[in-house]
Amino acid sequence: MNPLGIVKRHITRPPRDAVAQLSRFGVATLHEAMGRVGLAKPVLRPMYDGAALCGPAITVLLQPGDNWMFHVAAELIQPGDVVIAACTTDNIDGFFGDLLATSFRARGCAGLVIDGGVRDVKTLRQMDFPVFARAAHAKGTVKATVGSVNVPIVCAGALVNPGDVVVADDDGVVIVPAADAAEVAAAAAAREANEESKRLRLAAGELGLDIYKMRERLAEAGLRYVD
Amino acid sequence: MNPLGIVKRHITRPPRDAVAQLSRFGVATLHEAMGRVGLAKPVLRPMYDGAALCGPAITVLLQPGDNWMFHVAAELIQPGDVVIAACTTDNIDGFFGDLLATSFRARGCAGLVIDGGVRDVKTLRQMDFPVFARAAHAKGTVKATVGSVNVPIVCAGALVNPGDVVVADDDGVVIVPAADAAEVAAAAAAREANEESKRLRLAAGELGLDIYKMRERLAEAGLRYVD
Amino acid sequence: MNPLGIVKRHITRPPRDAVAQLSRFGVATLHEAMGRVGLAKPVLRPMYDGAALCGPAITVLLQPGDNWMFHVAAELIQPGDVVIAACTTDNIDGFFGDLLATSFRARGCAGLVIDGGVRDVKTLRQMDFPVFARAAHAKGTVKATVGSVNVPIVCAGALVNPGDVVVADDDGVVIVPAADAAEVAAAAAAREANEESKRLRLAAGELGLDIYKMRERLAEAGLRYVD
Amino acid sequence: MNPLGIVKRHITRPPRDAVAQLSRFGVATLHEAMGRVGLAKPVLRPMYDGAALCGPAITVLLQPGDNWMFHVAAELIQPGDVVIAACTTDNIDGFFGDLLATSFRARGCAGLVIDGGVRDVKTLRQMDFPVFARAAHAKGTVKATVGSVNVPIVCAGALVNPGDVVVADDDGVVIVPAADAAEVAAAAAAREANEESKRLRLAAGELGLDIYKMRERLAEAGLRYVD
Amino acid sequence: MNPLGIVKRHITRPPRDAVAQLSRFGVATLHEAMGRVGLAKPVLRPMYDGAALCGPAITVLLQPGDNWMFHVAAELIQPGDVVIAACTTDNIDGFFGDLLATSFRARGCAGLVIDGGVRDVKTLRQMDFPVFARAAHAKGTVKATVGSVNVPIVCAGALVNPGDVVVADDDGVVIVPAADAAEVAAAAAAREANEESKRLRLAAGELGLDIYKMRERLAEAGLRYVD
Amino acid sequence: MNPLGIVKRHITRPPRDAVAQLSRFGVATLHEAMGRVGLAKPVLRPMYDGAALCGPAITVLLQPGDNWMFHVAAELIQPGDVVIAACTTDNIDGFFGDLLATSFRARGCAGLVIDGGVRDVKTLRQMDFPVFARAAHAKGTVKATVGSVNVPIVCAGALVNPGDVVVADDDGVVIVPAADAAEVAAAAAAREANEESKRLRLAAGELGLDIYKMRERLAEAGLRYVD
Repeated sequence: MNPLGIVKRHITRPPRDAVAQLSRFGVATLHEAMGRVGLAKPVLRPMYDGAALCGPAITVLLQPGDNWMFHVAAELIQPGDVVIAACTTDNIDGFFGDLLATSFRARGCAGLVIDGGVRDVKTLRQMDFPVFARAAHAKGTVKATVGSVNVPIVCAGALVNPGDVVVADDDGVVIVPAADAAEVAAAAAAREANEESKRLRLAAGELGLDIYKMRERLAEAGLRYVD
Repeated sequence: MNPLGIVKRHITRPPRDAVAQLSRFGVATLHEAMGRVGLAKPVLRPMYDGAALCGPAITVLLQPGDNWMFHVAAELIQPGDVVIAACTTDNIDGFFGDLLATSFRARGCAGLVIDGGVRDVKTLRQMDFPVFARAAHAKGTVKATVGSVNVPIVCAGALVNPGDVVVADDDGVVIVPAADAAEVAAAAAAREANEESKRLRLAAGELGLDIYKMRERLAEAGLRYVD
Repeated sequence: MNPLGIVKRHITRPPRDAVAQLSRFGVATLHEAMGRVGLAKPVLRPMYDGAALCGPAITVLLQPGDNWMFHVAAELIQPGDVVIAACTTDNIDGFFGDLLATSFRARGCAGLVIDGGVRDVKTLRQMDFPVFARAAHAKGTVKATVGSVNVPIVCAGALVNPGDVVVADDDGVVIVPAADAAEVAAAAAAREANEESKRLRLAAGELGLDIYKMRERLAEAGLRYVD
Repeated sequence: MNPLGIVKRHITRPPRDAVAQLSRFGVATLHEAMGRVGLAKPVLRPMYDGAALCGPAITVLLQPGDNWMFHVAAELIQPGDVVIAACTTDNIDGFFGDLLATSFRARGCAGLVIDGGVRDVKTLRQMDFPVFARAAHAKGTVKATVGSVNVPIVCAGALVNPGDVVVADDDGVVIVPAADAAEVAAAAAAREANEESKRLRLAAGELGLDIYKMRERLAEAGLRYVD
Repeated sequence: MNPLGIVKRHITRPPRDAVAQLSRFGVATLHEAMGRVGLAKPVLRPMYDGAALCGPAITVLLQPGDNWMFHVAAELIQPGDVVIAACTTDNIDGFFGDLLATSFRARGCAGLVIDGGVRDVKTLRQMDFPVFARAAHAKGTVKATVGSVNVPIVCAGALVNPGDVVVADDDGVVIVPAADAAEVAAAAAAREANEESKRLRLAAGELGLDIYKMRERLAEAGLRYVD
Repeated sequence: MNPLGIVKRHITRPPRDAVAQLSRFGVATLHEAMGRVGLAKPVLRPMYDGAALCGPAITVLLQPGDNWMFHVAAELIQPGDVVIAACTTDNIDGFFGDLLATSFRARGCAGLVIDGGVRDVKTLRQMDFPVFARAAHAKGTVKATVGSVNVPIVCAGALVNPGDVVVADDDGVVIVPAADAAEVAAAAAAREANEESKRLRLAAGELGLDIYKMRERLAEAGLRYVD
């Protein structure tokens, strides 16, 4: 059982090199490189155009209408970390704003992913502090009930263990398990190399039908051309 | 009983000074200054980046698929007013577009908040006429059934009386009762002053845990650190 | 019966002139010019600011989690065509990304409308390849089950026949039947001319109440002014 | 300003007779009798088949994930009262269950309407304690932050003042202002009498087109019959 | 172009025999028999337990908040017909209630499918008049703007031509084109016969893996068993 | 990394006694006994009134529009097991119907929980085979792409490991980790005993305010009574 009220101080982060390599790839590529797993549901969106982030996860489990655990998490942030937060229930109050962003940035935080709401969006944009959230919402929160920090959480349908690498961009949020970081980065690089040759042929007007030799399989699957 | 088909000609607006002072603050700050009330639900979003508005409310109660009351409201707009509209039911047709925006602007209108749809979004952006709406939707509306103007309405869950100050930005929409405008502006100013000192300490790396003396309360609430 | 597994090779497109004329108007104007029909539901949004498109429809009926039919459709694209896709069920996986965009563009495609998800949004923006979709989602798809190409589809509630003109902008997506293209363009032009004179009068401060002579009808409908 | 943390002890209820008369009518009839206002949004549903209620409102404003105010409200319930609750934000935790139902019933409570979640639904059904809620959800709540009791609230989009009559059945929830209770009951009775004669004619096969003399108006509105 | 304001008096219904045969099958079976097309989106639900219907379609295109066209449709109902209604936009007002149900039944109507709201649900249940709708909602409607009757409509994503057979039960709503009614009924009968033998083998504990010979294909598709 | 295409044959189930004890409690009680964790989101509802289930989990990870893995899972069911399924994306097709229910029942399956759609609901009710799903939907599925069986899944936001105990009733779905089954059952029993004495006092009219000694804490939290 994993009750509420627990803070894990020490977590295992992947090697800095592996994180740096992952940061070169987009979310779609990493999701493919992992065998098509690891995506959060597409309900989290960047709070400003061009926001993107990559870093090991400090996980936070919030209570509805309560952002107390963000203050607990701040102390545990190491430079480059991403804070990723879920709530014990669906709630889009403004758990996070400019003061917490200031504090997190001072600790070296690379950004926030939250299955909930945030506020002070204009300031977040000015700070260029990347935030992916379910909503912008001015609603204030209290500090009354404990959640947990650095326990496994489910954020927008994705399982996140502390130390996993969180990557987010326009295409969504993907979670790369810490132990797989280097392997996934290598697979992503291979995939990109493979795609580049396809891109050139497609750009020249060649058809995917021919490049991928689909015509026969389509006919077997019953596709029928009519005039 | 507050039946449909009523237009109140004269409404009480707060002093211009109070509105001007409120316009200096963001929605999140005003919501806090009011004791955490007054927010609309976060379903209303700016129709273009950077839209913001602040002004006394002309309230409009629309019928579904019918924008007749906007023409009635236009006559009652005084310079600086915000028009805020609800519908007798959920409906996101395009109640408002470039022609009404032209008319409203000619009367000095400071912007529109509508729990419904609008259209001609490209033109609204070019005019820099701030609109917060539930959706952009080209769907046309008729002029066949009466609603009301300048009666109390519920817009996206927020009660609005005519003359209340409507403030909207990236963080949402907040309604400040006319009689409280000056008091709320003062409370907002006090809050911002207080936050500034916090921001400096947080930016220097100090923790909220220490600034707000949370450690003892967290322990009492059962928070437990593990390794 | 219109079973799955069918590709219609030859479709009837409207005259190029008619498409060119339609492309001068916004979605709201065309919807009005058609007698207020033809709109898709407002769940499809541009994947980047300023995206817009206009062209004859290549229709695609996808299976959930499967983008095979896009490769079949690519071969049938003629310069200026828009690909418009529906799915046999609600599904927002990332059916379309940068490789397909490269292929479609190489064939002269004017853009994509999809009641589903797309990915590689950053690249789509860089390519300036207009896409209107229900969601940005990195989720990968397979090529295993046949749908259809160039059959009638229902996309976000709108019936689309192959060859119909698809127009999309900030206000939504409208479908103009191929046979009506010229007539609708003419009606749209007439409407814009008529609106221009209204706009000038409204900009000068005249009221819609007077321009449209609404006061008497409002009184008959029971509207009552109070102080 | 109406800050949080307020309990109004004494409220004005409508005469018992007026409530009794209202209880004879369905929600649709009362909504019509009020001039088509007063309905909550149709997101509240009975937690078991056949649930219905009618009584003066004890209003409760909850905080997210916190049901403390229900205990405060219990003391103020008089026999026949309905408790109606909103939350300061969208939240569907299980604010209410069998113990609170037991307590409320012991005070004579006629039922609960809540824009939130409830639990122990099986027991509520066995007790035949009518509850209209947004969701059944086992999620537990805390008792840490104050809301308010017997202040005006907005519940599912409907404004409710303490003492207003709350009526709920399969068709939704309607709020009858306390001062209008007798008048609305009379109007509802008149409406039902009028409908009965219509029903007999319609049941005999006569058409609404003829009973309501619609044919001419339809033609004027442009309706055209084709073969 | 298919403008609003049209009523088609005479429609082609499928032979009574074919409709009677279709009525013997469930929606899931008919959807399969048609090659997996024809389903409405699963947003329409029976207004009472056990509601089911089957009959040729009288199609109705409503305007938001306006039920005028139902009165026009009533005159065109022949015994056994189903009325199926869409709206020009998303709207869940209570377009239909006990009086219209009385009128429709008097004309021999077999039930209603509506992508919108209905009211008087308790009475509909007592009358056993089958209704499939998006919501129960007491909200009243007006009679002010024309739509159309017996034109092609899109109802919850499904294209319906007048005379098509509408079948609805616990599993949803399916539209069988009039011309295919007999063929689909025959295919459904064949499917049921085929399923019966499967059911017996499965009930005896035999596995689908073996009955359908899936093991080899699964291995080819990459499925791997581990301990 | 936990790629797709894996079937784990042997899982660890909790002792039968522990499961039997858990089955005596409702979901709300078990959620509380676990320290308020373990709930699925309240989007899964019983497909017929009174459905309830309790048993060790066979987990299934489906692909959109594809129910192949249910056939793989069938072979692994032991009497008393519950099958619980998630999908790699949001999809509510009818993954499960009467034939699979027949097969699962023949293997001793105690019911199904699925974050997706099911069909043949009428037959499921007649069989009294308990199913909790997101939707009833007739939409057919294919057998083309592999998912996984008996890997950890996230179902409606809840993490489920194979062998965990799944309990579902009117209040939702809760997951009890296999290793905690006995402890949770004991905690639930203790909680129920404690609640019984409270219930008696509340039924006698005593107030929670007094039983739980809340008055002083409420005053400290700022609650203020007015007349």
